[in-house]
Amino acid sequence: MSLDAVLSHIDATLPEAIDRLIALLRIPSISTDPAYKDDCARAADWLTEDLKTLGFDARSAPTPGHPMVVGHGGTGNRHILFYGHYDVQPVDPLSLWHSDPFDPQLEDTPKGRVIRARGASDDKGQLMTFIEACRAWKAVHGTLPGKLTIFLEGEEESGSPSLIPFMEANRAELTASLALICDTGLYEDRLPAISTQLRGLAKSEFTIHAASRDLHSGAYGGLARNPLHVMAQLLADLHDAEGRVMVPRFYDDVEELSDKLRQQWQGLAFNHAAYLGDVGLSIPAGEQDRTPLEMLWSRPTAEVNGMWGGYNGAGFKTVLPAEVHAKVSFRLVSRQDPAKVLQSFRTWAEARIPADCRIAWHDEIEGSPASVMSIADPAFEAARAALTEEWGRPAVFIGEGGSIPIAGYFKSILGMDAMLVGFAKDDDQIHSPNEKYDVESFHKGIRSWARILERIA
Amino acid sequence: MSLDAVLSHIDATLPEAIDRLIALLRIPSISTDPAYKDDCARAADWLTEDLKTLGFDARSAPTPGHPMVVGHGGTGNRHILFYGHYDVQPVDPLSLWHSDPFDPQLEDTPKGRVIRARGASDDKGQLMTFIEACRAWKAVHGTLPGKLTIFLEGEEESGSPSLIPFMEANRAELTASLALICDTGLYEDRLPAISTQLRGLAKSEFTIHAASRDLHSGAYGGLARNPLHVMAQLLADLHDAEGRVMVPRFYDDVEELSDKLRQQWQGLAFNHAAYLGDVGLSIPAGEQDRTPLEMLWSRPTAEVNGMWGGYNGAGFKTVLPAEVHAKVSFRLVSRQDPAKVLQSFRTWAEARIPADCRIAWHDEIEGSPASVMSIADPAFEAARAALTEEWGRPAVFIGEGGSIPIAGYFKSILGMDAMLVGFAKDDDQIHSPNEKYDVESFHKGIRSWARILERIA
Repeated sequence: MSLDAVLSHIDATLPEAIDRLIALLRIPSISTDPAYKDDCARAADWLTEDLKTLGFDARSAPTPGHPMVVGHGGTGNRHILFYGHYDVQPVDPLSLWHSDPFDPQLEDTPKGRVIRARGASDDKGQLMTFIEACRAWKAVHGTLPGKLTIFLEGEEESGSPSLIPFMEANRAELTASLALICDTGLYEDRLPAISTQLRGLAKSEFTIHAASRDLHSGAYGGLARNPLHVMAQLLADLHDAEGRVMVPRFYDDVEELSDKLRQQWQGLAFNHAAYLGDVGLSIPAGEQDRTPLEMLWSRPTAEVNGMWGGYNGAGFKTVLPAEVHAKVSFRLVSRQDPAKVLQSFRTWAEARIPADCRIAWHDEIEGSPASVMSIADPAFEAARAALTEEWGRPAVFIGEGGSIPIAGYFKSILGMDAMLVGFAKDDDQIHSPNEKYDVESFHKGIRSWARILERIA
Repeated sequence: MSLDAVLSHIDATLPEAIDRLIALLRIPSISTDPAYKDDCARAADWLTEDLKTLGFDARSAPTPGHPMVVGHGGTGNRHILFYGHYDVQPVDPLSLWHSDPFDPQLEDTPKGRVIRARGASDDKGQLMTFIEACRAWKAVHGTLPGKLTIFLEGEEESGSPSLIPFMEANRAELTASLALICDTGLYEDRLPAISTQLRGLAKSEFTIHAASRDLHSGAYGGLARNPLHVMAQLLADLHDAEGRVMVPRFYDDVEELSDKLRQQWQGLAFNHAAYLGDVGLSIPAGEQDRTPLEMLWSRPTAEVNGMWGGYNGAGFKTVLPAEVHAKVSFRLVSRQDPAKVLQSFRTWAEARIPADCRIAWHDEIEGSPASVMSIADPAFEAARAALTEEWGRPAVFIGEGGSIPIAGYFKSILGMDAMLVGFAKDDDQIHSPNEKYDVESFHKGIRSWARILERIA
């Protein structure tokens, strides 16, 4: 069987694949620090050259920031785009690293062999799983496994300033029928997962103004409005006692979980006590008639992310401040429209404050809607079967509580769904000192992509 | 008549009295700035020498900080203590002063002649009204108007660190049957007032702890407890919709206003719309079944003076913080006990937070109770009659929404009530650039004390 030959080739050439990853990891492509600008370009060039050796028509495309790597190759009925990013997080505090973050080390640990370096997991190790799968396929078959576009960004860790303009300027070139994104993790040890829905996000920052100046609570306290009380009341009223968000029409566009996903999620036996216990908590705090996984993945939220007003220095100042501030964000699901949610919130808030106060809004009304993939696309079940075969445990469709902006951009700018498959583990210490990627993640990741591409491309 | 002779002498020698005040104002006795330590001592010496010329047995008494001026003199059936302070606030921003703050200017303004300098009103001008009244009395009668102790502090503007130890160490010497304090103002233009009740103060600072670290709202939002919500709910629950404080037993020791004071306060025709309008507000925010003056003077409050938690920098961080902080203070009246109020608040708050949160309290349980003077002491009605005669409008008993700590110390340490009479005006700009004292306040202030002393000493 041809797939078996590819898998065998992957097994036999793993040492060389690791060497290539190590070579890429040696390049300190920290995108947020201008001192590493040349290194980012160098990483892009390294990847471009590597893709060319596989027969991709590849280039390092300049942007106002760091270059994009774009490569096209192969033939097939279905055009698949693969996304990853070659830039990495800064490494400070350097003193907490046990070895040079850009001198990759192969280490044997009680949990297995790991590759330790900045970017080993996020995202150089992950993106190379896909490229190595292509390489093995090419070695065995002489061709790429399908009509592929590789699209690698160099600004993911620094806010992706060039991403939207680049996608808009290269719409035709980048539009495929499905995007694959390798920047997520296993659901748990050796249990692969495909993220099929990501919550969206809407953000609101505002100030409640009361008196024209700070007031002394001796001279005014009891008579004058204290905006700290107004803010506390407003934010307290944001939820009812059962954890429901009280902004009118907030739930209008929220869909119930499908029976299929509900059943899969139940199968995950999510241990919320352990999940909360890890951070010192014990009580699920969301909508009380929902399961913990629904609270995290499929239900929208309203969360205060900051509030501040009055005196916060040492000692006391008995002040009634003139103003108080808050930042509130909404995690969105299903078809919730960020603009509509923010507008409802504004209207609701303004109707609730006393007539001698006013609210100044500091944000534009914008945000990103949830990403909900059409899992009716047979590629999703095909990928699930492929992952199940590789890992020996039934792969699962999961949700993500957070947003992964690139998935939203693929949908909104290029009109394509994304399938998020990744092999990172919770203990990879991404963004932290001593980042690592399990050799098993790398090896089985390559094999996973070979199996997935064999089925969908 | 002997009082008339004293008043005439005051009128005739006003220019010399102003010259003496100006001499005192030239000494930059800023107590909070160590650079002015010698100047504080110089002001104390100047006052000591001046009191000696009036026959007081006076001394500048050293303390770990700035000296106290203490002088005893005169004879009489009733021992009266007079309190003022010779230290002043800093002068920055100096650029906003129209003249040197320590080069006093006599200025004619549309509202009358003023003495402009730092300390002109707070409190050198005010304390000199009493000393000049004694001087005139001595000049006419050859004796002081009664058995008097003058007690002048040099640290009032910097927290009075030496005051309590000094009072405790000199209890016998300083204990009189009544204290007069000249550090307050007219109720309104040309309407003199005696403050008979001052609210007390209790302060609480605390932190609500939830998760063991800051959480990302994508990974935890909806499931994990957000302490910002817990704090908002707690502070919102501090009052009901009618403005009542919801801490149990909070009102147990709160007495209703006497009919006598209620009647006087009604006579003041307090214009709350103007009072609030001056600071951009319009709606009385306290207990809705109380008059605005009750809200300010005779009802206790619970006010949030600061709350902060989460992210407050530029942009957004979708964080569920580990902790959130607040400062809450209570203005107290009647026999409310600060320790009891704070303990009730703690118990109430701790019972309201979720089981996986906890509150850390950062304050000692302490505070100052309200000062409520025994206006049954005939000195109060006598002083009221004296002030009414001098100013031509019926003087009023008023309350103060804030605390004046010295009045509480006279009561708690020396067991004596205080009568607060002062001639400052709302536009004196104390603590601000271009502080001034009206020559009329100074002149009629001296005459007022002569009339009061004639009746009570």
